[in-house]
This record gives sequence, C-alpha cells and structure tokens, in this order.
Amino acid sequence: MASPRSWFSIPKGSPFSIANFPFGIISTKESPNLRTAVAIGDHALDLAAFAANNGFSAISTIQPHQAVFSESTLNSFAALGRPIHSVVRKYLHSVFADDTPYPDVLKNNAQLQQEALIPLKDVTTHLPMKIGDYTDFYAGKNHAYNCGVIFRGPVNALQPNYDHLPVGYHGRASSVVVSGTPIRRPNGQILENPAAEKKVPIFSPSRKLDMELELGAFVCKSNPLGSPVPIAEAEESLFGLVLMNDWSARDIQAWEYVPLGPFNSKNFGTTISPWVVLADALEPFMVKGLQSGVELLPYMQEKRKENVYNIKLKVDLTKTAKSGTRTTITRTSASNLLFSFPQMIAHHTIGGCPFNVGDLLGSGTISGTDPTSRGALLEQSENGKVSIKLDGGEERTFLEDGDTITITGLCGEDEEGLVGFGECSGTVEPAIKLDF
Amino acid sequence: MASPRSWFSIPKGSPFSIANFPFGIISTKESPNLRTAVAIGDHALDLAAFAANNGFSAISTIQPHQAVFSESTLNSFAALGRPIHSVVRKYLHSVFADDTPYPDVLKNNAQLQQEALIPLKDVTTHLPMKIGDYTDFYAGKNHAYNCGVIFRGPVNALQPNYDHLPVGYHGRASSVVVSGTPIRRPNGQILENPAAEKKVPIFSPSRKLDMELELGAFVCKSNPLGSPVPIAEAEESLFGLVLMNDWSARDIQAWEYVPLGPFNSKNFGTTISPWVVLADALEPFMVKGLQSGVELLPYMQEKRKENVYNIKLKVDLTKTAKSGTRTTITRTSASNLLFSFPQMIAHHTIGGCPFNVGDLLGSGTISGTDPTSRGALLEQSENGKVSIKLDGGEERTFLEDGDTITITGLCGEDEEGLVGFGECSGTVEPAIKLDF
Ligand SMILES: [Ca+2]
Ligand SMILES: [Ca+2]
Ligand SMILES: [Mg+2]
Ligand SMILES: [Mg+2]
Ligand code: NI
Repeated sequence: MASPRSWFSIPKGSPFSIANFPFGIISTKESPNLRTAVAIGDHALDLAAFAANNGFSAISTIQPHQAVFSESTLNSFAALGRPIHSVVRKYLHSVFADDTPYPDVLKNNAQLQQEALIPLKDVTTHLPMKIGDYTDFYAGKNHAYNCGVIFRGPVNALQPNYDHLPVGYHGRASSVVVSGTPIRRPNGQILENPAAEKKVPIFSPSRKLDMELELGAFVCKSNPLGSPVPIAEAEESLFGLVLMNDWSARDIQAWEYVPLGPFNSKNFGTTISPWVVLADALEPFMVKGLQSGVELLPYMQEKRKENVYNIKLKVDLTKTAKSGTRTTITRTSASNLLFSFPQMIAHHTIGGCPFNVGDLLGSGTISGTDPTSRGALLEQSENGKVSIKLDGGEERTFLEDGDTITITGLCGEDEEGLVGFGECSGTVEPAIKLDF
Repeated sequence: MASPRSWFSIPKGSPFSIANFPFGIISTKESPNLRTAVAIGDHALDLAAFAANNGFSAISTIQPHQAVFSESTLNSFAALGRPIHSVVRKYLHSVFADDTPYPDVLKNNAQLQQEALIPLKDVTTHLPMKIGDYTDFYAGKNHAYNCGVIFRGPVNALQPNYDHLPVGYHGRASSVVVSGTPIRRPNGQILENPAAEKKVPIFSPSRKLDMELELGAFVCKSNPLGSPVPIAEAEESLFGLVLMNDWSARDIQAWEYVPLGPFNSKNFGTTISPWVVLADALEPFMVKGLQSGVELLPYMQEKRKENVYNIKLKVDLTKTAKSGTRTTITRTSASNLLFSFPQMIAHHTIGGCPFNVGDLLGSGTISGTDPTSRGALLEQSENGKVSIKLDGGEERTFLEDGDTITITGLCGEDEEGLVGFGECSGTVEPAIKLDF
C-alpha cells in the first residue's frame, strides 16, 4: 500500500483512510436492496454499482466473481478467500491513490462518483454476515482475573485450565445485531440477596446490565466435521474483524451459569460494528499479546510471536436522559489478549468441530491492568460497590435505561494511514412489562 | 384419526404406522435432489412426486404451499405453522386409511404408488432442517443428579438453580448430523491424573467417549429480539421431535468446562434421527414428568399437567469389531424430564432471545432411576469404575472405536397405532493421528 494520499477528500482523523477499505452491507432510501460497500472517508463506495459500471474492468481476478457484491451478506465474498480479498483491497487502494494508474475508473469519472460514492449519513448499514455459529472466548486475561475475583474470589479467580486453552462458550448467533439496534433490558431470574442461604429467585428486569468490550472475528473458510484446522493454516480462515459489545446481565448470569455456563445473561443481544476490517488491513498493527504462564501444547503453537492487534479501543457512555453528555469510561488496547484468533480456531476445531463461512468468534472482554482500562462495568464498579463518575455529575455502577454505549477502535498514529472500525453502538431500552 | 388400518401394507411393529407420518428429507440414486417425504411402514412417500401428481388436489389448504415439498430442508414447511402441519398429516392419514374417501389419489393409482412410494432401504435421509441455533438443555433430573455426584460430589450434585429453571447451554449447530454419519473420536486436552495437584494437560484422543440419550425438538416459529414467547403460546412453536445422541468426551469436558460450560467436549458431533415426528402425532402420549421441588415462577407455569412424552427409549451398543453383537444397554421413558419443551422455549426467550424456524432444542440426557435406565455411560460406569457387560463377553466403561450406538423410540402399545422415530445411529471412528 504505497501511497497514503488520495485524490478523494478524506476528512482528517477518519478511520476509513485509503489504508483500510473495510467491507459492509448497505442500503439507501433510493435503493433499498442490500449490497456490498467499502467505507472510504465519510462515504461508502457501493461495490454493486461500481462493478456494474466497469469499476473492476482493470482487474481480471475479480471479474468472474463480481456478482458477490450484489448479495445481501458478505459471505460469498468472504468465501473467495484471503488472496482474493487482498487483491480487491489493493486494487481499491490503487483506484483511490493520488497517483492512481486507473484514473478513468473513478478519479476522472464524475458520473460513477455520483452514482457509487454515497455519504455515510445517507447509508443504512446491516449485519455484514449471515452468522452460522457464534463462539465467545474469554481470552482477555486481565478481565477474566478481575471477574474471577468477583464471582469466585482470588484463589479460584482463574481456573487451572485458563492458561492452557482459550476458554470459551458457544453463543447465540440469532442474537447478534448490527450497531444501532436498540437493546432491551432483559427480564429474568435473579437472586435479590445472593448471600442468603436459601436461594429463591425473583422475576425482575436485570438490575446489573453491563457491556463487554470485545473484538469479533469472522471466519472465511469451512472445515468438515472431524477435520481440525492446523494452527499453521488458521490465519487463512480469518476474514476480518469487527468491534463487539457482548451485553451481559450480571445478576441473571450469577444465578444461572453454574454448571453449564452463561445463557440468558448473554443471549438478549450482542452488538457488532457494521464494517468488517480485513485481516490484511490490520496486519501492520500486530504486536505481542499477554504472556502465558505455561508452554502451550503443539497444536496451538504459532510461528509468529506478534499475533494480536494493537487497536486503540475506547468505550463511551452517553446519557440520553437529560444532558446527553458523553463520557469516555474505558481506554485500552486490543493487545490485552492471551490467545490469538488463529489459536482460538486451532483449539475450537482440534476435536473436529466444523466451521462455516460467516461464523463469528468473540475475543472475550478486553481490559488493561489499570482501572480506567477495564472493559466491563462489572470490573469498573467491582460488581456494584464503586460508582463510576460521569461527566455532568451523574454516577453509574451498571447501565440505566436510555444509556448508550459506543465502542470505537483505531490503529495507526498518522491520520493519513488510520485503520479503524467506526462505531459499535447500542442504546438500552427499558425492559418490557409482562403481566401474569 | 379414526381408522388404525391401512390399505397399504405396513409391517407389524413398524414405528411408521398411519398414526404417525413423520417428515424427513430424502434423496435416491435415481433422483439425487433433496426433497420432502413422510415415512409410512417400510416406505417413504415422496411428497414432491406426490404433489406433482395431484396428490394434494383434494385439499385446498395446502395447494398454495406445495412448492415447500421440493425444498432441501423442512424449514419452509415447518414455517407454515402447526395448523397446516395438522391438516397435512390428517389428510395423509385419510389417504392411507382403509376407508379412504380419496381412493383415486393413491389407493387405486398404481402409477403414483410406483413413482412416489419408495422402499426405505433405497432412500438416503438427510439432515431434516437447516439449524440456525442449537441449545442443549439439562432437564433429565436423574441424569443431572448422577453426573453432579460424579463431577462435584453429592452435596453440590444439583445446583440451587436446578429446579427453578431449565439449565442449558448454547450448542454448536454446525456439528449436528443425521443418523448414520460416522463420529470421529475427538483429540483434545485431558488430564492424565485429574487428582494430581498440579494440573498439566496432555494432548490425546479422548479416553472417555460417551453417548447421551436425548430428545430433540425443532422450532417452527420465530420471535424477534426483545419479544419473549409466552408460555401459553410456546406449544405453537413446536414443530416436531427427533431422537438425539449428544456425543460427549468426558475427559475433555472435565478439564474445560469450568467456568463457561462444555465446549470441545460436545462440538465434535451430535446425531439426530432423520424423521421429524410432528408434535401433533405425539399428543396422545403426553404424561406428567418429574416433579419439581419448588413452585415455578409464573412465566414458566403451564396450564396442562401432562407436558412430557411417554416415549419408550432404548439404546443399543453394537460391537462391529468381531461379532457385531448388539446389546441393549438402556431402557427408559422420555417422561423422565423436569421441564417440557414449551417451558424451555418460554425460559429461553424470557430475556428477549430470538428464535428462528429450524432452531433445535435438546432435552438433556434422559435417565430413569434404576441402573439399566441410565442414558449415558458416564452414569452406567460411574465414570469408569464399573464395567458394563455386553452380550458375547466383552465389557465397556466408555465407547471403543468401531462401536455403534443406536437409539430407538416408540410410543403406543398397539402395533397398529405405533408412533416411533426409527433409528438414531452413529459409529465411532478412530481419532485422526496428528503430527507436530
Ligand atoms: Ca463475552
Ligand atoms: Ca447433552
Ligand atoms: Mg451476547
Ligand atoms: Mg453434541
Ligand atoms: Ni383417522
């Protein structure tokens, strides 16, 4: 990706520089059919329109596959494999570069610019992939330790298995939604007094609604039942990344999760950002992750040492109630992970579990070590004991109705080469009232 | 369903009497495209062929929907809803009844019989539904207690939550396969000596490969995110039932499952029987289930007391190695459940989790109270301590390579009115050898 400059006007600080080209699914008022786009600056390039107007005429590799850009999910594009994703992204980069070798494609083609470059504010984004299965890992070791202390005390905070394998659970694919979808506070069973000897649950809206700051990774390769994905090939399965908020009801979770894991505390909504940042685009930002206390078994040993991403993550809480004030409550780096996505894939499939294109992996909540870098309110508030002060005077331990959580993530120091995700955002709606 | 007799020859003891009409997806050597069929005696009635030859001409309700029978899954048929399933089943019953009011449709139509009635031995059955999400519950209280004793001792065998809610976990939809699919023994992390103070796992094929005797239920109604399915309407979401073997690797499970639940110990294969027995066909066999020690919260209280099925379940283990001898290792009733499928649906959705048509629910392992009625080898062998004697002289604690597990399930006393599932069967293949 030679040139960092574009003939196209890209606002300063945009996460969608010409070093990025994340893929998403869009529709517009004028054209309600779902189709593929890439984000560039504050515009979306409609790839269905771009393809229909010979945008890809200079690149023979993609020509037999152009129909994928008219589909309503990215699955077929993802299934083409990483070498093709790379070719398409590099081509789009060269089309937008100042010194583009293809000026007639778009730079000097006012009509196609008019047709295919749509302001992001006029675009509706949709769930980018049809998700077959969704697995949420727990590889944020700082978070796992902090939560373990809260739920099980410091002695058993991390189980003996924690460093040896990426702990995870199967999530609910049907509950994954795109940024902007309102999240209803769930009703469910909770204990009013968890310390009481007699455990009798009440039915209530969750009183401990929380967010979880995570990365999501989409899979672009399938493997059949009984055939593990070797660690050396697992990177080839990585389509791209999104930001993820794994909303969690801590009181429902505490009551339900032993012995089979979290269930209704997690399946009422998981929000992802709409633009899938290709694994290739994130390659320059790979760094070492958290260090393991043990030697991993060979099936999870990676050749590369720098296997996680130095994405600067930020969580904002916006009070819509009165002031609408936005407070940054978390700043951390996505490098705070004990396992990489390729390690997760190698472990997940080692017994023969099949993957399909479009499957989603969550990293687990990402927290740093200091209090302002914690990726969940459970940790920040020490399960409700400590208040988090918001700009404008209010406080929170957990989320209130009307609160909006917005996650952003950005790589790179130089605004000309920024690679970011845009926003992963959701607003809490009041629980529905149920009469019995 | 007045007449129990058919003009069509149905072998004695067939699970597919004219009181049944289970739905499945078939193909044949002559006609490899997947399509819908019902099982009747030792034949499949090809509903695509039946529809194409005016088989449904006497029943106006189904005519606008006949295309569903040419699809490769039952999802579209299921989505038509229980009233339509009921009409179709009753119509097929009347077509096959001795005193059919529609003799020209099939009874006197030798050509259509020739074309649409295919011997089951010439039919390949496929996964009947496209499964969006799969959830496995744990409602077999006898099993949960026995396993709890083994993993956590008798004091904590059942958690305080157990009687208050149907404990469950999200399973891996991609790993659900149809009866007959070979199951590879998974490799994974296990502890050679779980009692040792220092916990260091080794990489090994599972040494404790187990089966789990379960019922599966397919969902035929969707609900949007944030909108629970009320218990009074949950029966309308129940398309039909299958037998299920939730293969489990107990040594992998013991090491991995705390705190987020079973993962690789369960996602290497779950086998279901190919014929979906409609909820309507099982209605006459409903009985009371296991009694709860607590009063349920209103959102799970059902009007009907008889909410589970008296299906006679049987598990056979066949040694293919030498003799091929088949030993019945378990006999029990599917009524050994603490929660009904409608209760599971009401609980699963109470926080707003969305369902899609084709989602699968597992009941949890079904065990009776006496040793010969236990639905998993973990319980039968007391985690490897007690040997199970097989006919022909061998013994088992867990499954060996080459073993075949076959589950059958049958309702009704009278062979003329039998409602059964056929077989849910799978053979264990050796673990693949991996070089590092
Ligand atoms: Ca999570
Ligand atoms: Ca199970
Ligand atoms: Mg979630
Ligand atoms: Mg399974
Ligand atoms: Ni009848």
